[in-house]
Amino acid sequence: MPRDIQIITEPQLRKIIALDRVLVDVVERAFSALAEGHVVMPPVLSMDLPMVHGEVDVKTAYIPGFDGFAIKVSPGFFNNPKLGLPSLNGLMVLLSAKTGLVEAVYLDNGYLTELRTAAAGAVAARHLAPSTVDTAGVVGTGIQARLQMQAAFLERPFRRGLVWGRDTDKADACAKDLTAALGVPFSATTSVADLVARAQFVVTTTPSREPLITADMLHPGLHITAMGSDQAGKNEIAPRVLAAIDAYACDSQSQCAALGELRAAIDAGAWADHKAIELGEIVLGKKAGREQPNDVTLCDLTGTGAQDTAIACHVRMAFPDAGQSIPISTGTS
Amino acid sequence: MPRDIQIITEPQLRKIIALDRVLVDVVERAFSALAEGHVVMPPVLSMDLPMVHGEVDVKTAYIPGFDGFAIKVSPGFFNNPKLGLPSLNGLMVLLSAKTGLVEAVYLDNGYLTELRTAAAGAVAARHLAPSTVDTAGVVGTGIQARLQMQAAFLERPFRRGLVWGRDTDKADACAKDLTAALGVPFSATTSVADLVARAQFVVTTTPSREPLITADMLHPGLHITAMGSDQAGKNEIAPRVLAAIDAYACDSQSQCAALGELRAAIDAGAWADHKAIELGEIVLGKKAGREQPNDVTLCDLTGTGAQDTAIACHVRMAFPDAGQSIPISTGTS
Repeated sequence: MPRDIQIITEPQLRKIIALDRVLVDVVERAFSALAEGHVVMPPVLSMDLPMVHGEVDVKTAYIPGFDGFAIKVSPGFFNNPKLGLPSLNGLMVLLSAKTGLVEAVYLDNGYLTELRTAAAGAVAARHLAPSTVDTAGVVGTGIQARLQMQAAFLERPFRRGLVWGRDTDKADACAKDLTAALGVPFSATTSVADLVARAQFVVTTTPSREPLITADMLHPGLHITAMGSDQAGKNEIAPRVLAAIDAYACDSQSQCAALGELRAAIDAGAWADHKAIELGEIVLGKKAGREQPNDVTLCDLTGTGAQDTAIACHVRMAFPDAGQSIPISTGTS
Repeated sequence: MPRDIQIITEPQLRKIIALDRVLVDVVERAFSALAEGHVVMPPVLSMDLPMVHGEVDVKTAYIPGFDGFAIKVSPGFFNNPKLGLPSLNGLMVLLSAKTGLVEAVYLDNGYLTELRTAAAGAVAARHLAPSTVDTAGVVGTGIQARLQMQAAFLERPFRRGLVWGRDTDKADACAKDLTAALGVPFSATTSVADLVARAQFVVTTTPSREPLITADMLHPGLHITAMGSDQAGKNEIAPRVLAAIDAYACDSQSQCAALGELRAAIDAGAWADHKAIELGEIVLGKKAGREQPNDVTLCDLTGTGAQDTAIACHVRMAFPDAGQSIPISTGTS
């Protein structure tokens, strides 16, 4: 039986899919679906390739009620910048939830992952940030540093921003870009402690393996979203922070216990009697997140296959005729 | 930096890639690489979707010295035949082993998986079957029943064939097809016991969850390749068979202990002091397989990501300009 598979490339996706509140709503639905308990989401397939300084993750999730589900392939090859190539890359495959047939291949080079990751940050801001944010701060100077601030601005239109990075030139460049993108002044700061002290909303976006934010930096009314850790060795937030705050939320408790900030806190014995809330439970109103303006809250984001399925279905539904259709038979067998 | 991604569809693949001894050599290299111990092959990502009678497996492996590695997506949705669609489907993505960039997408609907699975059967026949096979038998009547007999015939040009299936009409049709394809007479038989008694070489290709071949059926000089089991609940070979034979070989010991015939033998307590040989160790000459003409041998095949990487690289190298090139930028970031 002949049928078509839709092929869409990164330039085409960049024209039609953007980081906006519609996308935040889409990714928010992935969180609420996860918390409803009917999502099938196997552990991430992770292949570490130290001999080529690379890694590949494959994520997927089946969400009842969604017409399709994504298989998302994310390679990270960290020698690439020396070759003039980006470290991150990959694609998404969308399969029919009814027949398993491949419906679309999004040759996005990681663009959709960047967007859904930023949108997840916006969901965290929507449900956990103080109702008013004067100053937002970002730790890190890469693509996600920029996107996370743009995402937060959709939910909490702050008045100024701060950037910290190990490389001050990169921090200055990031601050300049964000000033231009958002129309509010961003400046680079010389320490994480200074950034946290001056901000009510902080996002950490680094691949750090040593904590950058420590418990002594916390202050009333602070929200932190930590989205850098997505592997067992990474750690941006000191374990004692998780024990000291009023509410710890995460995208997936099982995944964060293996790959997120929660993993380091558990390993350090700092977790014991504490309880994790999944962000989706807050979205659904099943659990409280921030209860008081002065609460200190943290959201640990490792990135879920449910988010990939949500954005892939969004691409499919919003633009059914975009891209190139490749005619394909379903086989002679 | 603009670059192209190669897209090849099933009809194009069927024209250029066939089951022949070149392909058997390619897949044999995957076995020897695995046994050399430098392959990185994470556990299969497996998502079971009972609510839609479906499942999805994702396999991958990095083989040192190969230019690329495959990520293979295999959905099986078993209500599809009612809709006039095949149960099995899927695609392979080939990534550069150096940069992780997506180089090709093979929209094969499972065709390459069918071929590499058959070729793995040929590798087992090459190294474990008696040197002369008069009669070959296949248990099952599907695509793999046909392909496994064609694969075995490449290595052991037998004089006649037997087919057994639960549905005698399907067994007759399969025997007729194989007679036409191979030019030697195939006939359907009424019992597995009869088939095994008359054959020196047997392949089991079913999704059975109850053993079809039992220890009382074994006879001197018999080789069995069991390739139907690829999930924890499946079982074609009675546990006592594994304890009774002279050599048990498998594609991957860890994978077969979880998904293959070995799993059932371990669960039944029939394994204890026995030892598994990986087929690649036999290919490399590190371990003996069949030592005497009268030995009874079995090869347990679950299908490895290394086989997927081998066939994907074969497609890439043999036909560098085939298919459709989709121009794609590697991103603005």
